[in-house]
Amino acid sequence: MTVKTRDKTIGILGGMGSKATAHFFLKVVKNTPARKDQDHLRIIVDNNPHIPDRTEAILGIGESPVKEAQRTIRNLENAGAEIIAIPCNTIHYFYSELQNSTEIPILNMISETASYISNRFPNIKKIGLLATTGTLKTRLYHNEIKGVEILTPDEDLQKRVMNSIYGEQGIKAGYISGKPRSDILEVIEVLVSQGAEAIILGCSELSLLSIQKEVPVALIHPSHVLADVVIKTARSEI
Amino acid sequence: MTVKTRDKTIGILGGMGSKATAHFFLKVVKNTPARKDQDHLRIIVDNNPHIPDRTEAILGIGESPVKEAQRTIRNLENAGAEIIAIPCNTIHYFYSELQNSTEIPILNMISETASYISNRFPNIKKIGLLATTGTLKTRLYHNEIKGVEILTPDEDLQKRVMNSIYGEQGIKAGYISGKPRSDILEVIEVLVSQGAEAIILGCSELSLLSIQKEVPVALIHPSHVLADVVIKTARSEI
Repeated sequence: MTVKTRDKTIGILGGMGSKATAHFFLKVVKNTPARKDQDHLRIIVDNNPHIPDRTEAILGIGESPVKEAQRTIRNLENAGAEIIAIPCNTIHYFYSELQNSTEIPILNMISETASYISNRFPNIKKIGLLATTGTLKTRLYHNEIKGVEILTPDEDLQKRVMNSIYGEQGIKAGYISGKPRSDILEVIEVLVSQGAEAIILGCSELSLLSIQKEVPVALIHPSHVLADVVIKTARSEI
Repeated sequence: MTVKTRDKTIGILGGMGSKATAHFFLKVVKNTPARKDQDHLRIIVDNNPHIPDRTEAILGIGESPVKEAQRTIRNLENAGAEIIAIPCNTIHYFYSELQNSTEIPILNMISETASYISNRFPNIKKIGLLATTGTLKTRLYHNEIKGVEILTPDEDLQKRVMNSIYGEQGIKAGYISGKPRSDILEVIEVLVSQGAEAIILGCSELSLLSIQKEVPVALIHPSHVLADVVIKTARSEI
């Protein structure tokens, strides 16, 4: 006999950044099988823009995001969240500190993406990685992805990636076409010319660019992987 | 001397439906002037799909949404919300019952839209209104919009509006092109032929259709009006 159990309430720790959070929430809603309002999942979002910048903390030039992130997780927990998803790659450097501060499970976007890659691309040899300097420096993806060579931009190209994300006319400032877009396409082109068979867009802001049509290899969006995992984890069996 | 006061935390009472809620959240984020993550507003969303259907309650064929909506407002309040926005038109029939259950202000999307119309279209004589049968029956917009003739679809056309929203292949089931879209365009065409100088898309689902280019008059999106009002109300003066 199968028993219908209650779906779990999803908590989204957001604000890193806000637009990436809103798109992640929308992705979860869009990918949830539903024919009417009542078929959807309960989702609590705490979009907290006061969490200090993750890359600055890692580079030692800014405050740690841990305390404020932990406070926000507690707020989600008090509001009824039963599993937590965090659509920001770089904060995952602090994953253990966050998970250790709460009883409820926090999904790990980095390891979920690594599993996705090994299932979906079992024979891949080289993969490109675009991410913040914080994510690259802490080798978040390098530590999780085994048996695949990870290609990253050289120093000059990495500056362009960071500028596309953080620049005055970058994605966090609301620009998703023009220079940020063409710069990211150029960096991807270099990695593909070096043999990358797929590209990880390892910063949620990069998933806001519409570029798949202009890229000859698969783009992997960790935030989309996370959206599907959180739906599957929240949805009860019938 | 001007004093920088703290921005207010926004609470979004969501789930009616989930996709309209996610788009509303995205709209608030996109319309917030921000150059970096930390410039954004704190926003708590409680996307609660368990709130019973509003139109069914109004038509006397379903449970009242009031109790579950009040519980969700309390949850937002406990999580830190200081003003509440509800991106669902029909629930506004129960506005007083919701506002009376909490100390924090709930923005009224219907009256904000009425103000927007009188400011933006001071000389308008006739306006078309597409909404759920619940919203039409309770005359939510009729009671707020003064001195403008409101044109609504006849019974047959209203069935098509409801089917576009609630049907098996309707917007709440995830269909935003094809029949729901062409049906809504046809209904709008009839209202325009009757003299409507603008059209209120008085159900948040209708704002999910991309139709402005095919409509010869202005489309008014109450959820977009609400997004701008909530940003203005939340943002502190410096």
